[in-house]
Amino acid sequence: MIVVLKQNSDKEHVDRLMQHFMDMGLKINYSEGDNTTILGLMGDTTKLDERDIMAYDVVERVQRVTEPFKAVNRKFHPEDTILEVAGRKIGAGYFNVMAGPCSVESEEQIVMVAEAVKKAGASFLRGGAFKPRTSPYSFQGLEAEGLKLLLEAKRQTGLPIVTEIMSEKHIDLFADVDIIQLGARNMQNFMLLKELGRSNKPILLKRGLSATMEEFLMAAEYIFAGGNTNVILCERGIRTFENLIRNNLDISAVPLVKMFSHLPIIIDPSHAAGRRDMVQPLSRAAIAAGADGLIIEVHNDPKNALCDGAQSLDIPQFEATMADIRRRAEFEGREMMPQ
Amino acid sequence: MIVVLKQNSDKEHVDRLMQHFMDMGLKINYSEGDNTTILGLMGDTTKLDERDIMAYDVVERVQRVTEPFKAVNRKFHPEDTILEVAGRKIGAGYFNVMAGPCSVESEEQIVMVAEAVKKAGASFLRGGAFKPRTSPYSFQGLEAEGLKLLLEAKRQTGLPIVTEIMSEKHIDLFADVDIIQLGARNMQNFMLLKELGRSNKPILLKRGLSATMEEFLMAAEYIFAGGNTNVILCERGIRTFENLIRNNLDISAVPLVKMFSHLPIIIDPSHAAGRRDMVQPLSRAAIAAGADGLIIEVHNDPKNALCDGAQSLDIPQFEATMADIRRRAEFEGREMMPQ
Amino acid sequence: MIVVLKQNSDKEHVDRLMQHFMDMGLKINYSEGDNTTILGLMGDTTKLDERDIMAYDVVERVQRVTEPFKAVNRKFHPEDTILEVAGRKIGAGYFNVMAGPCSVESEEQIVMVAEAVKKAGASFLRGGAFKPRTSPYSFQGLEAEGLKLLLEAKRQTGLPIVTEIMSEKHIDLFADVDIIQLGARNMQNFMLLKELGRSNKPILLKRGLSATMEEFLMAAEYIFAGGNTNVILCERGIRTFENLIRNNLDISAVPLVKMFSHLPIIIDPSHAAGRRDMVQPLSRAAIAAGADGLIIEVHNDPKNALCDGAQSLDIPQFEATMADIRRRAEFEGREMMPQ
Amino acid sequence: MIVVLKQNSDKEHVDRLMQHFMDMGLKINYSEGDNTTILGLMGDTTKLDERDIMAYDVVERVQRVTEPFKAVNRKFHPEDTILEVAGRKIGAGYFNVMAGPCSVESEEQIVMVAEAVKKAGASFLRGGAFKPRTSPYSFQGLEAEGLKLLLEAKRQTGLPIVTEIMSEKHIDLFADVDIIQLGARNMQNFMLLKELGRSNKPILLKRGLSATMEEFLMAAEYIFAGGNTNVILCERGIRTFENLIRNNLDISAVPLVKMFSHLPIIIDPSHAAGRRDMVQPLSRAAIAAGADGLIIEVHNDPKNALCDGAQSLDIPQFEATMADIRRRAEFEGREMMPQ
Repeated sequence: MIVVLKQNSDKEHVDRLMQHFMDMGLKINYSEGDNTTILGLMGDTTKLDERDIMAYDVVERVQRVTEPFKAVNRKFHPEDTILEVAGRKIGAGYFNVMAGPCSVESEEQIVMVAEAVKKAGASFLRGGAFKPRTSPYSFQGLEAEGLKLLLEAKRQTGLPIVTEIMSEKHIDLFADVDIIQLGARNMQNFMLLKELGRSNKPILLKRGLSATMEEFLMAAEYIFAGGNTNVILCERGIRTFENLIRNNLDISAVPLVKMFSHLPIIIDPSHAAGRRDMVQPLSRAAIAAGADGLIIEVHNDPKNALCDGAQSLDIPQFEATMADIRRRAEFEGREMMPQ
Repeated sequence: MIVVLKQNSDKEHVDRLMQHFMDMGLKINYSEGDNTTILGLMGDTTKLDERDIMAYDVVERVQRVTEPFKAVNRKFHPEDTILEVAGRKIGAGYFNVMAGPCSVESEEQIVMVAEAVKKAGASFLRGGAFKPRTSPYSFQGLEAEGLKLLLEAKRQTGLPIVTEIMSEKHIDLFADVDIIQLGARNMQNFMLLKELGRSNKPILLKRGLSATMEEFLMAAEYIFAGGNTNVILCERGIRTFENLIRNNLDISAVPLVKMFSHLPIIIDPSHAAGRRDMVQPLSRAAIAAGADGLIIEVHNDPKNALCDGAQSLDIPQFEATMADIRRRAEFEGREMMPQ
Repeated sequence: MIVVLKQNSDKEHVDRLMQHFMDMGLKINYSEGDNTTILGLMGDTTKLDERDIMAYDVVERVQRVTEPFKAVNRKFHPEDTILEVAGRKIGAGYFNVMAGPCSVESEEQIVMVAEAVKKAGASFLRGGAFKPRTSPYSFQGLEAEGLKLLLEAKRQTGLPIVTEIMSEKHIDLFADVDIIQLGARNMQNFMLLKELGRSNKPILLKRGLSATMEEFLMAAEYIFAGGNTNVILCERGIRTFENLIRNNLDISAVPLVKMFSHLPIIIDPSHAAGRRDMVQPLSRAAIAAGADGLIIEVHNDPKNALCDGAQSLDIPQFEATMADIRRRAEFEGREMMPQ
Repeated sequence: MIVVLKQNSDKEHVDRLMQHFMDMGLKINYSEGDNTTILGLMGDTTKLDERDIMAYDVVERVQRVTEPFKAVNRKFHPEDTILEVAGRKIGAGYFNVMAGPCSVESEEQIVMVAEAVKKAGASFLRGGAFKPRTSPYSFQGLEAEGLKLLLEAKRQTGLPIVTEIMSEKHIDLFADVDIIQLGARNMQNFMLLKELGRSNKPILLKRGLSATMEEFLMAAEYIFAGGNTNVILCERGIRTFENLIRNNLDISAVPLVKMFSHLPIIIDPSHAAGRRDMVQPLSRAAIAAGADGLIIEVHNDPKNALCDGAQSLDIPQFEATMADIRRRAEFEGREMMPQ
């Protein structure tokens, strides 16, 4: 970490600050120029908070030169992490498609969609039981009943399931879920991150709408810090000024995650744009950029869906998309995970 | 709500869509032009979701023309809401300053700061017991013990307290807290919003870092929908591209809240910039723009604070700031709430 | 266009507003609900400005339902535009790579790079003579002398050239340039857009750092409005909150341009991230998403480049990237344009 | 400037980089830690470009620790700059209100508005002759004829004028204009900045919609670099995600400019929100935050204005606003400049 001191700072105050750093076991490189005096701090700076240091009157600026995340940092774990969930490998070299409806609506619906996406080649069934909705007046999901229906669809089709958790209180309800999704709006719900860190379930961690890569990886670090190293990252669109689409896929997230972390990353092209006609081009871009999988909304009857119909594919559209995905994953040398 | 149809849409599909709206009790105004056919939906559209309608193939665009929030909407409640908390009035015509440290650190510290901010003129003591921190390796607050110390400071000084809740599981711990704060990162933690909606505690709802006004007011609507109408809004800076400051105060939030809602709004100038030297100019702007109060970080010893030292005022700085605030609140014709 | 009226508006004022629209040749569909009265305007609304209408006291909200751009709109020109420049086809079905240094530095350098990128498979030579630099103290390009050197490189290698114009006063200097680039910071330099509209040169129009798609297409519309229909769009990264990269490639721009316009679009992966190690993954994403070409920075000696060295590939890196690009363009069924 | 080296970098390459810096007259402080080696560069680094340094393979990160602007930097010019234009002082301690219509439309209109705003207390007349419009189909201003009408209004009322330049070619037309405005979209039109730098006219430099403070001050530095030190900064709203308003006033710009520069800064509350009902609260916030003046749109007949009617005040509204402004400027101890 670099600490830039104010010009003409009181020597005694500077000494006190330097003593503070040395007490924390850090080494200091002191460098004095005409206009600027700089302290270079060497050692483990992950516990230092830039803002605490800024509180010292003699400090003008603080700049971190190493990433604040450790456990998820590729520097300290150079090999790619590959998870194994219900017999599917997730990570470098493999490709998974998770598909299903925004909301579970009935047994008939979820089993029907599960069979269809399995047949088309999805390796996981996704579906929402607890639904985060902007309005309290919108349908909030079938909740615990929805979870049961998902598990029933899993029983009937053999597809492992991915579904979103919204409350620390619900962790026990998710005991038989294969991958627990943490939604974008809860990416910095630190209590829920800690709860998931204490579990040993695979977690699909969605990036917040305006989160930086560093914040995203720090959220994963929270889960690791609790002892759970089964994390899959998911980019689902960020907020930009564009109003023709709902969110905007940050394609750079894929190579950046691959550079800075060892974790798998998948892309959600359905939420990333919020419009059905963008799912195919964004899926193609994601595969080419190196994503490890896709999570796609599919509904048997999008126009009667209880939520997010605008971005759902119907089943024939999903079948066509899967054929395209398979051809492209093979072109990239990825092994498609089985249904 | 306005539904723009695609050109040359199949008549039968359009009829089915129109029937769908009529089944929901809406009236439709059908208007056909050379290039565009538009359906104007009349009636209660708060339960409609634009995205469900977009799922219909014949639909090109959907635009809401009335706000999706009702209970917090000034249109349906023209008078300003004025809360009364521990004898202090909060809302139009009154002015409150909430002050205290980022984190509670010890009984000595919190009582000392409480006495000092009371003497300087604050009407509430703020302080963090549960702390949302970006890094799992940073100090996370004294938690339940911190709450006890806050209540002890209240007992000794008589100042009512404001402190942040981070978990649904903690609601009982907050029984004696005067105002429960919901932090920016949890603004769309819908389960926690629902929990707070079931309580009857005054809630200080902080705006998310990239939330729009509509999303902010919809979060308040969640609390109202649960039956709790004691909501104070708090603008604390949004994320912009500026890197000289941590966040950026959205001063427009004040007049916009006053136009669109009847709820009180206060400003947090400490988090809004993240630097001490901005607290005074931002406080001045907030008062002039019509804010109903301020929440300010004050520490007895900012450079040894366990969090956010960079933005805390020390006690002499706070006293000077309070004198300035008082003079300005009076200029605006506001009544300063007592200590 | 939809005009939502304020509740309980004065009838006489509404009549005056409606007369105003009818005087402009528009038809009005009047629809009155319990809470809302809506005017639907039918006819050519491209000359209407939402903001003028907002000036009427009776108006609460104005919403455009058709795009404000016409000449570049796919609705009115369904076939893809394919330009032909110096024997290269640019647009649907074809693929062009434009490559070269950020700045022209010397005859030796530019000829050397031109030969190398030609050999590797680029169909155009790019290079900066006039350079937009954030600081007045940075190297500003060789200017007119740089243009001469580019033309000399063209003479020696046969590669057509693309280079940026920064001033209306320079248009004559660009007479022999094959494609004139308009930079991101000048995307809304309306006088320069008009000047380029009066020329018949192919224009490479770069998107502004925070421009919406609509603003981007309106800038192209300016050039069309002057009579010049030779426009190639270029997405080069937008500003987001991410600080690991300089800008952020908006991959959605590719499918959105293809939906809303008939113009070709190419991607600049070098500026889009500002770091060399992102050029390959972003190029791959661009090709897969349907871009019509790439513009890539290549330097014989990036570390001594006079500008933007951080994002330049050296020649061996470019050769490897071109091999990858060619393989992928073929996979997509695009015809690579010759050197 | 701080240069962080990659781990295990080749010693010979590091030596070459260090030699490069020493050749530029910089001193280097070399500091080697377990994980990180850092070079601290001392001396005049304003000519260094971070991106050139990033081109070296051994470099991981570059961070500037001093501002890249010099001439406009308060560090090197601690006293406030106070301009004197047509007898009005602009800068610390003084307060100016510039007012007038978005567009000059006729002699009758501009003279009428000039008289009215003069009577109400404005010290400058603003009005657009050349108008930057998003659409080529919108009214583009009366151009040269509009300038003549402004000068006629100046002759009749004695009010000095402020108006926008859009082209380097027009500089001679602006010979009798008192303050030349450079619009937000041209903030990084470097050729126009250089042209204005060669003139000695006072320049009102508007901040770009997504420009950082550093970029804003660097644009002013361009004008200074050409020899013209008569610059007034103007904040006019930035682009944020809020859609209830057109742009969003960045109130922090006022204290940040005062900290980092010695130049005057005024606020444009009309463009900052794009709605008339926000002009008063934003003006109040601006005065309280320390702005040196306001520029306000006033029209005799906003609903028939040829542009931006939505944000214009009519004359009685402006008179009321001026009374409020005067009272507040006095409260702040500012001297209102005469009409």
